[in-house]
Amino acid sequence: MAGAPRPAVALTLGDPAGIGPELIAKLIARGELMRQAHVVVVGDRWVWEDGQRVAGTRTALHEVASIADARAWAERAREEPGIPCFCAIETVRPEEITRAVANAAGGASVLRALRTCLDAARAGEVDALCFAPLNKLAMKQAGLKFPDELHFFADYLGVRGYVCELNVLEGLWTTRVTSHIPLKDVAGTLSRERIKDAARLLHRSLRAAGVARPRIAVAGLNPHAGEGGTCGREELDIIAPAIHEAGAEGVPMDGPFPADTIFLRALAGLYDGILTMYHDQGQIALKLMGFDRGVTVQGGLPVPITTPAHGTAFDIAGQNKASVEALSRAFGIACRMAASAAQRGFTSGSS
Amino acid sequence: MAGAPRPAVALTLGDPAGIGPELIAKLIARGELMRQAHVVVVGDRWVWEDGQRVAGTRTALHEVASIADARAWAERAREEPGIPCFCAIETVRPEEITRAVANAAGGASVLRALRTCLDAARAGEVDALCFAPLNKLAMKQAGLKFPDELHFFADYLGVRGYVCELNVLEGLWTTRVTSHIPLKDVAGTLSRERIKDAARLLHRSLRAAGVARPRIAVAGLNPHAGEGGTCGREELDIIAPAIHEAGAEGVPMDGPFPADTIFLRALAGLYDGILTMYHDQGQIALKLMGFDRGVTVQGGLPVPITTPAHGTAFDIAGQNKASVEALSRAFGIACRMAASAAQRGFTSGSS
Repeated sequence: MAGAPRPAVALTLGDPAGIGPELIAKLIARGELMRQAHVVVVGDRWVWEDGQRVAGTRTALHEVASIADARAWAERAREEPGIPCFCAIETVRPEEITRAVANAAGGASVLRALRTCLDAARAGEVDALCFAPLNKLAMKQAGLKFPDELHFFADYLGVRGYVCELNVLEGLWTTRVTSHIPLKDVAGTLSRERIKDAARLLHRSLRAAGVARPRIAVAGLNPHAGEGGTCGREELDIIAPAIHEAGAEGVPMDGPFPADTIFLRALAGLYDGILTMYHDQGQIALKLMGFDRGVTVQGGLPVPITTPAHGTAFDIAGQNKASVEALSRAFGIACRMAASAAQRGFTSGSS
Repeated sequence: MAGAPRPAVALTLGDPAGIGPELIAKLIARGELMRQAHVVVVGDRWVWEDGQRVAGTRTALHEVASIADARAWAERAREEPGIPCFCAIETVRPEEITRAVANAAGGASVLRALRTCLDAARAGEVDALCFAPLNKLAMKQAGLKFPDELHFFADYLGVRGYVCELNVLEGLWTTRVTSHIPLKDVAGTLSRERIKDAARLLHRSLRAAGVARPRIAVAGLNPHAGEGGTCGREELDIIAPAIHEAGAEGVPMDGPFPADTIFLRALAGLYDGILTMYHDQGQIALKLMGFDRGVTVQGGLPVPITTPAHGTAFDIAGQNKASVEALSRAFGIACRMAASAAQRGFTSGSS
């Protein structure tokens, strides 16, 4: 990032009943990480203080009255890089939250903090958002009417294009053509257009994360990738043509490969990205490879948004046992994508 | 095996062009393993000698004129346990074989050696068979008219019941309800009867391998195991009822579990066996977990038959680079199943 201006990245505390606040406290205490960006923590003062108490940290933040003030202060304070700002908002009262319990108040708190950050992103006040774990059930109790946070983000930001979550594990990026649909409907849902949509998203996201020439592998659908058409024809009729067409428009990919060896190829360092055809094809592999250390990137949005792959971990919330590893990787990816966006005019929804 | 008579186990050399002969030579040289059974190596003398030459071993075997003679000699020679026998047969001439090339002569050699051993098993002369890697293409060139060796074994042994291969990796046994069929046909092929057939086979095989009370987990079909019917109904309509019915007939199982976490449960030591619904559901996980170290058990046959999960590895054949690890595990499982069969009157096709 030498020479380039630091991006501004907002952090939210996640569900106040979970491990989010303590993880953000741990992350903020790692001063060397904070030098990657102008960081502004957005959340309730008591939740942040509770997080610091659990984590056993006492990091001093620079208080700002608004998110917009954070970057302005940080850019003035060039001589002291790495001091994060804190922008206090009021989303929930202490008596409304019980540790390790999902409820509507916690869900509403998360939604308010996210909306505040999305407003700031739309106004150009921050370049990326990294959020600590939220609880979907709590958010639905608070009135969330989307299946997940990605569709909430897309709606709030007015995105009409293709969106899909990306899963990142130690430099390997994956996404899938179909997601939460019954297995019997997968084959009928595949199409060249859908595969190309997912391929473009994966390619664009890898480039935004700093991979200049992404090497992408595509999984087949059937056992042994269809064995030349004798065990299913989708590889010949849909997937291979989609790979060909994507290549012609500047998204080169290899495959289709048998699903049971494609991750071994990636582990051997041959690929930066894997495109899978259905949910479990990727998730079986990622979870075995340690996806609790992984990162979820909200793909297809005009602003980089990342989060750890793990959840609120109510079983260990408040005990200072949670690992900050995945959050720090999520933060690092947000910083890289934001720096790239700042330099290249990132608009992942439209390029 | 203290007190029980040693089982008699036949070993074949596999495809003469592959890594089989050198692996058998390495296995035989591990004297401590040979004490588990009365071993008889069945194959061409020149192939065995070639294997010893590649492996750099010079193990002396006791020559017998027939497989039947092997156990008789071994039982007389009690004071010298662990000396394997060699039963020479003629299946192929040296000039018919080129290292690392699959051809009909190699396939015919494999088929002849296997038939000789199956005849001996039917006659009660051996209790189990462990075969070194064969090459399906070569066997098909030699006239094999079945999709794989399992169906050849079943036909040759007159088995009419349910057969399916089992994959064993470090104590974890898996099998699947559907196998080499297009993914679009998986959901329609599932039935309670098929699930119970596979469950009985897995349970019986685990017991035959010495697990007195097998703990078996069953995978769901859909993402998140169907999320209570909102993402596919096969878990509610087919899989859960099959689990219930299997339990009622003495085959207790847990599940259905989401496919992307079921192998984590097994890795945590909670299960001895996993029943999957389709090919890649298990194979993605097993290959990531290192299934090249795994063992394939031919399930549903009246005689235990095992082999390494890996193939003939033509890329390293003749170079003494191949690991004997998987073969030695396959041999160990054959010995345990044979000992159990000898003690309990093993008839896995009918119990």
